[in-house]
Amino acid sequence: MEVTRTLARFLVSAGPEDVPAPVRKECVRTLLNWVGVAVGGSRHPAVENAVAAISPFAGPPQARLLGRTERWDILNAALVNGISSHVFDFDDTHLKTVIHPSGPVVSPVLALAEYLPVSGREFLHAVTLGIETACRAGNAVYPDHYEAGWHITGTAGSIGAAAAAGILLRLDELQMTWALGLAASQPVGLRESFGSMNKSFNPGRAGQNGLTAALLASRNFTSSRRMLEAKRGWGRTISTRHDFLEITGELGRRWEISLNTYKPFACGIVIHPAIDACIQLRKEHGLTADRIDRIVLKVHPLVLELTGKKEPDEGLEGKFSVYHAAAVAIVSGKAGEKEFGDRAVRDPAVVALRGRVTALADPFLKEDQVEATVVLRDGSELRKFVEHAVGSVERPMTDGDLEAKFADLVEGILDSRRTRDLVEACWGVESLSRAATLAETAVPR
Amino acid sequence: MEVTRTLARFLVSAGPEDVPAPVRKECVRTLLNWVGVAVGGSRHPAVENAVAAISPFAGPPQARLLGRTERWDILNAALVNGISSHVFDFDDTHLKTVIHPSGPVVSPVLALAEYLPVSGREFLHAVTLGIETACRAGNAVYPDHYEAGWHITGTAGSIGAAAAAGILLRLDELQMTWALGLAASQPVGLRESFGSMNKSFNPGRAGQNGLTAALLASRNFTSSRRMLEAKRGWGRTISTRHDFLEITGELGRRWEISLNTYKPFACGIVIHPAIDACIQLRKEHGLTADRIDRIVLKVHPLVLELTGKKEPDEGLEGKFSVYHAAAVAIVSGKAGEKEFGDRAVRDPAVVALRGRVTALADPFLKEDQVEATVVLRDGSELRKFVEHAVGSVERPMTDGDLEAKFADLVEGILDSRRTRDLVEACWGVESLSRAATLAETAVPR
Repeated sequence: MEVTRTLARFLVSAGPEDVPAPVRKECVRTLLNWVGVAVGGSRHPAVENAVAAISPFAGPPQARLLGRTERWDILNAALVNGISSHVFDFDDTHLKTVIHPSGPVVSPVLALAEYLPVSGREFLHAVTLGIETACRAGNAVYPDHYEAGWHITGTAGSIGAAAAAGILLRLDELQMTWALGLAASQPVGLRESFGSMNKSFNPGRAGQNGLTAALLASRNFTSSRRMLEAKRGWGRTISTRHDFLEITGELGRRWEISLNTYKPFACGIVIHPAIDACIQLRKEHGLTADRIDRIVLKVHPLVLELTGKKEPDEGLEGKFSVYHAAAVAIVSGKAGEKEFGDRAVRDPAVVALRGRVTALADPFLKEDQVEATVVLRDGSELRKFVEHAVGSVERPMTDGDLEAKFADLVEGILDSRRTRDLVEACWGVESLSRAATLAETAVPR
Repeated sequence: MEVTRTLARFLVSAGPEDVPAPVRKECVRTLLNWVGVAVGGSRHPAVENAVAAISPFAGPPQARLLGRTERWDILNAALVNGISSHVFDFDDTHLKTVIHPSGPVVSPVLALAEYLPVSGREFLHAVTLGIETACRAGNAVYPDHYEAGWHITGTAGSIGAAAAAGILLRLDELQMTWALGLAASQPVGLRESFGSMNKSFNPGRAGQNGLTAALLASRNFTSSRRMLEAKRGWGRTISTRHDFLEITGELGRRWEISLNTYKPFACGIVIHPAIDACIQLRKEHGLTADRIDRIVLKVHPLVLELTGKKEPDEGLEGKFSVYHAAAVAIVSGKAGEKEFGDRAVRDPAVVALRGRVTALADPFLKEDQVEATVVLRDGSELRKFVEHAVGSVERPMTDGDLEAKFADLVEGILDSRRTRDLVEACWGVESLSRAATLAETAVPR
């Protein structure tokens, strides 16, 4: 079976017109979500440290670091933008494989779009096929590969990045085969990195690796023609499971990017149902903390196992506290990155309410379900059962939800006019004559 | 067991005075050999293509591309010099693990030495510990990791590169721990790349990855403190075998770099005994091709399996032909890169003699043995049994052999004065006030 070559052939021959409109629309939503988290994360210490480390070595000012003032060569810009977009752990998720596909794919392609003349339509097409490639590569080796210890976003991601960059570089079929091979040679990221800055490095480096691979292939730097499927190639070396039909099956007919999801809340996905319920109750009943006697949450057992921290003291700990999450959702009606910052976690109003939140494990509930009961000081009870948390495939974030998330993320970095222009540029990406407009608008004035 | 941390502690606390003189001397020999192959390989199409692909994105002129006129930022220079030094497959080998350690380690450290003020003594110390780290990491996971399909030079190599670069950057213990973790997150190279330019990319990229890791760590970009040994860390994720005592055992007392070897001939190691025998016979008897009726080689069975090509037509095929190797050794008395070029393979004198070479598999012979019989036209027979081929640990290349190899490799790139100066700078590296002198001398005038 020719896996690498078959994939390459599809990548170099499919055009934007071969991608159904709903698939392209999902990619536009992915783009909007990615730009928001990349701008939002651009001032995080991980990004500051990476910029300080790399800046003496960066090349010509070809591409912007989103949310910042620096302009670097496209390879290093791809690295930093990939770090920014993942550092809040608030980006997109292909739930079947837990790949966060946009970080490694959009980062290099946007940088390349600043360097080449590329239309918005071509740009979106490259992103679509890059994400499709990353998710399909992931499907081929999940779950064994992830279980073994690989951060699959960085391993499958570099292949997706090469595919996307290779499309913009107009590689021919053989060159694309080499690009995929060179990218597959550079998996990046181990799960032991979770909890350190290294985690956000992984998608950034994967994007940079894929871009490097495509650039090399464009100059006929050769690789194997069978890197994905060969005996001592990618799939068999990095995973005990490898089903290559996941890569080549129904190309152009089955679209993995349609399954992409976006986090509404800036914390581990298991607390999302509880937050969802609290925000709904707050909105429906105009709830305020002072009216509440106590909150009782029935949750999937995993919630207590992973996020049972009762008295978080730092923002990062707040992300692992279902108590903080429920309290801050009631107090502020939101659960974005700010609501999991040090300040929010120490806010007296939140701390007071958090002490009145109880969580009970209920083995009959599914992971994206919750039953929340709010007992008011007047003795009355309000109840909310969430069947599927917002942000799941079944109850996706609406375009409006994505815009609100975006606005929250970029606040304080972009002014309101820039924010409006940027949102508009994302939604209208396919009609941009120059995709570079996206990057030009995603930096402070 | 603290593996990453223990290794980091050793790396930041050992000084040049803690390394025995014979170990340092072996590292000097490794350096001379590496500089020769890096300069020699610098005009190969793989290098030309990589330079063409990356040059629009390279940063400030901080470090030289050996053998060439370009000066690039240190990260990209490390990549290219690593490619140059491996592209002839003529570099050093740690036979226990088949790691070619100098490519990933010396490339980034020499580039860094041009950027920092670093003495030759400090430079050599960093190279020594970097190679030690790469080989120890390799020992911990060999052979399973290599058997699975990893090009171990690129996987263990990035860790060695981070160690070496981290020493020159004067990382503290915690930063070194992070550097090792960030480097371990970026293994590069699959065996399926063998036979394509991708193979030489692997050590180059590994060096660049390790340098990136050390630079990030120097700015407090964090990683795990247990990346090598953790459950979902390096060793357990990338190999079914992982013996971490190979990394931490007898640090500072057992030196893997003492086992480093250097190829005398520019081809697969299995043909080396046959070439060795032919060159010895030629020298001892003043042999010329026209006096020879036929050559009969008794060889280890693997020789015919791997290098049984009877009528090679291109240089690369010549590397897989024991017949060509024996013939060219008799005709020219050498078997360097030139003797495996297209021209040598098509040389009528070589082609004629090659047809009179027979090879017989003898299961009683070891891999580094051969029995060569030359039957002369006058009916007399000359015989040579090689117990250990030159270049093995048991019969190492002499300093003179290394110098002759060096001179052959750099011929046509460096003039004779430069060549002499460069050899002198390598042998005297520990007394150089600036290690950068090495790079400055390793480019055409």
